[in-house]
Amino acid sequence: MTVVVQLDELEERICAALEAGRQEEIRELLLRHHPADVADVIDRLDDDEQARVFGLLPPAQAAEVLSETDLAATRALVRRLEPVAAAALFAQMAPDDVVEILGEDIPEALPSILRVLPPAEAREVQRKLAYPPRSAGRLMTEAFVAAQAELSGAEALALLRRLASSVETLSDLFVQDEAGQLMGVVSLRALLSAPPSQPLRVLMVAPAAQVAPETDQEEAARLVSQYDLLALPVVGEGGIMLGVVTVDDIVDVLVQEGSEDVLRLGAVQEGATDEGYFTTPIWRIITRRIGWLLILFLTGTMTINVLGWFEEALAQVVALSFFIPLLIGTGGNTGAQTVSTMVRSLALGELRPGDIWPVVGRELISGLLLGLLLGVIAFGLTLLLGNEPDLALVVALAIVAICTWANTIGAVVPLLAHRLRLDPALVSAPLITTLVDATGLAIYLLIARLILGV
Amino acid sequence: MTVVVQLDELEERICAALEAGRQEEIRELLLRHHPADVADVIDRLDDDEQARVFGLLPPAQAAEVLSETDLAATRALVRRLEPVAAAALFAQMAPDDVVEILGEDIPEALPSILRVLPPAEAREVQRKLAYPPRSAGRLMTEAFVAAQAELSGAEALALLRRLASSVETLSDLFVQDEAGQLMGVVSLRALLSAPPSQPLRVLMVAPAAQVAPETDQEEAARLVSQYDLLALPVVGEGGIMLGVVTVDDIVDVLVQEGSEDVLRLGAVQEGATDEGYFTTPIWRIITRRIGWLLILFLTGTMTINVLGWFEEALAQVVALSFFIPLLIGTGGNTGAQTVSTMVRSLALGELRPGDIWPVVGRELISGLLLGLLLGVIAFGLTLLLGNEPDLALVVALAIVAICTWANTIGAVVPLLAHRLRLDPALVSAPLITTLVDATGLAIYLLIARLILGV
Repeated sequence: MTVVVQLDELEERICAALEAGRQEEIRELLLRHHPADVADVIDRLDDDEQARVFGLLPPAQAAEVLSETDLAATRALVRRLEPVAAAALFAQMAPDDVVEILGEDIPEALPSILRVLPPAEAREVQRKLAYPPRSAGRLMTEAFVAAQAELSGAEALALLRRLASSVETLSDLFVQDEAGQLMGVVSLRALLSAPPSQPLRVLMVAPAAQVAPETDQEEAARLVSQYDLLALPVVGEGGIMLGVVTVDDIVDVLVQEGSEDVLRLGAVQEGATDEGYFTTPIWRIITRRIGWLLILFLTGTMTINVLGWFEEALAQVVALSFFIPLLIGTGGNTGAQTVSTMVRSLALGELRPGDIWPVVGRELISGLLLGLLLGVIAFGLTLLLGNEPDLALVVALAIVAICTWANTIGAVVPLLAHRLRLDPALVSAPLITTLVDATGLAIYLLIARLILGV
Repeated sequence: MTVVVQLDELEERICAALEAGRQEEIRELLLRHHPADVADVIDRLDDDEQARVFGLLPPAQAAEVLSETDLAATRALVRRLEPVAAAALFAQMAPDDVVEILGEDIPEALPSILRVLPPAEAREVQRKLAYPPRSAGRLMTEAFVAAQAELSGAEALALLRRLASSVETLSDLFVQDEAGQLMGVVSLRALLSAPPSQPLRVLMVAPAAQVAPETDQEEAARLVSQYDLLALPVVGEGGIMLGVVTVDDIVDVLVQEGSEDVLRLGAVQEGATDEGYFTTPIWRIITRRIGWLLILFLTGTMTINVLGWFEEALAQVVALSFFIPLLIGTGGNTGAQTVSTMVRSLALGELRPGDIWPVVGRELISGLLLGLLLGVIAFGLTLLLGNEPDLALVVALAIVAICTWANTIGAVVPLLAHRLRLDPALVSAPLITTLVDATGLAIYLLIARLILGV
């Protein structure tokens, strides 16, 4: 009964059947596997193969698979479909999945699809599109269990049975007044444990958290994680409950945001998270990376100027230039460590706006201590390599100063970004490294001028 | 009814009351807030304050708060308690929380606490501790709904009501045979939608996924995310069901692993994820960072050797040294981008072991293209700065070669780490940068020797 899916094997068999034109075999393989696994295989095929395989799926399973493929693959597949065929698929999908697929990215398909969707779903899709991308409103589902406070436990359970197949979460019942205002929440656990005659009014508690539809999905994820929620209510103006964000969507948000932090810290432009590694065309990889590389390259040219100012010193003591890569490398490494620590602490909500000075204080001290430790080693090493003690002193002092400086910059810049409501992970490690390169060089060569008199 | 918790305010009021010795006020404040929020405030106090505030909590809420504080804070609090007092708290906590707190880290407290815990819980804690850290076995709960296949829907619902307050998840019923083998799973949705007389045998389906207790928590998280599960069954030898991993624990795993990736990419030693930013003593920050910094520093000294080999060339053409920081910086940036892309694709399970050559091919090509784009700019820029065309050619060719090289290295090293079953995020951006520094210099100066004849 073990269900270990060998995706490699599944993909191989599908590709072989595709080549040999054995459509029946492909269809059978697709139907025997979980839509999420089928989606993974489709993600790795090229555009034509994707369309051919996808075309073999019966509509119900096609809709399920379409909710699971990479967004880029999904959109490519949708673009190839007639609006009527696309709408038929979308009609079988949850409106939040439809909104995620259509989003801002294929506006040309939207009107024709909205026209053929069932009117209720079309309206829900339009309501959702009015909220900002990556907001709780985009993520939420309107299919939740709403109940009146006067309902008894037994009546509520009967309601739950009636709605079971159409709502997206059964873990909580949301109690509303006649106007639709959220009054409280009754967990399924409380409902099942209580005597059947007890009214919801008695069973309900205030929700541990709620969000507005405009709230960023990352904040929604933080609340779900903080309070161990299965469903987070989304409440609009006047306390009217609009929908719930379910934990399975939050799991996807966490995976996506984690991915983005990693990419941003590496100075790769976002957007890449929508696409599979192998299905992203190389030109798109280039366009997503060249921007940051260019900015960093041009910022990096400052180092040429700095070295130019000290041309004479470098010509007099060639050995000075030997330590340049090591010194700025160490500064970059120290700064990258601090940036990581900051990005993580900010993501976990450990740091608050008022914390900037205590943070700077801590990072200044730890940078100084790290610099002192490395400085002592650098001093010994420089002597060992047969250099004069005064050059060794220059290198050691430069390490101390650069580490302290890099550590402080690596803390301040993400905190400032956070204040300006930018993602602190945008302050990538490469950015800090590049900033520290130029300033670190100036620090090093000024110390050299001071001590060596060059 | 809005429940926006102002943690800043809560913390301020608690600190003020603490200073003034107004214990009643603190207790009242603590009881009025969610245990997760109280835990967040406690995380930011110093050791003494933590113990004083925690001592004011009634045992039931103290146990809830203890499950939510940072692990480091929790352990410090537990160490201050008498074993009997600690066991009284632990007896009110879920065994998986107890195991997380005790773990390997406070072995001295374990025997005395096990002795005073209720025997059934003590045995469960010991069973869990036998599984590796960060495994599904550590994470799972044994409190799930197990049912026989012959039970009718109505009987199963009655069982659910009986167990509602003691099990950790109500979303799925797990059907077992007499031996305890997992036969299938019935979702609450299916149970509620079906006629009450239908036996579970008819309602059950094969679980979309299952794991062994030794399975890494990251793999468990991947499966929960892939199949949108609320509860993942953990199955031991002979197909015997041991427990379930619930989605709220997976949310915590995702937050923790995301945090770790960020830290590791920044070359900060793991372990730091257990602790709050402000509660980590500075000496511990230093010990967690100096290791990597030293390794990178010592690796970085290779650059001194490389430059030493080319001493004459550098003395002859001082301008050569002006471009060193820019060239190795660009190499480091390109490498960091690739590392990020790899770490992300590996974490999402997009890449498989057989993919190494296609990946190397792609990264070689994109590195070459990025290098060509930057190389053209570098050529123009070097000329603009008043250098000879042959130096400009050296710089441009070096950029092309270094970008291609850094991109390939940035792809190969994480893939190799993954093959060796190391976390690819351990191959931090700083590590790649440092590797590229030395090799990039050699590439640059060899090209210079070739073209300039120095």
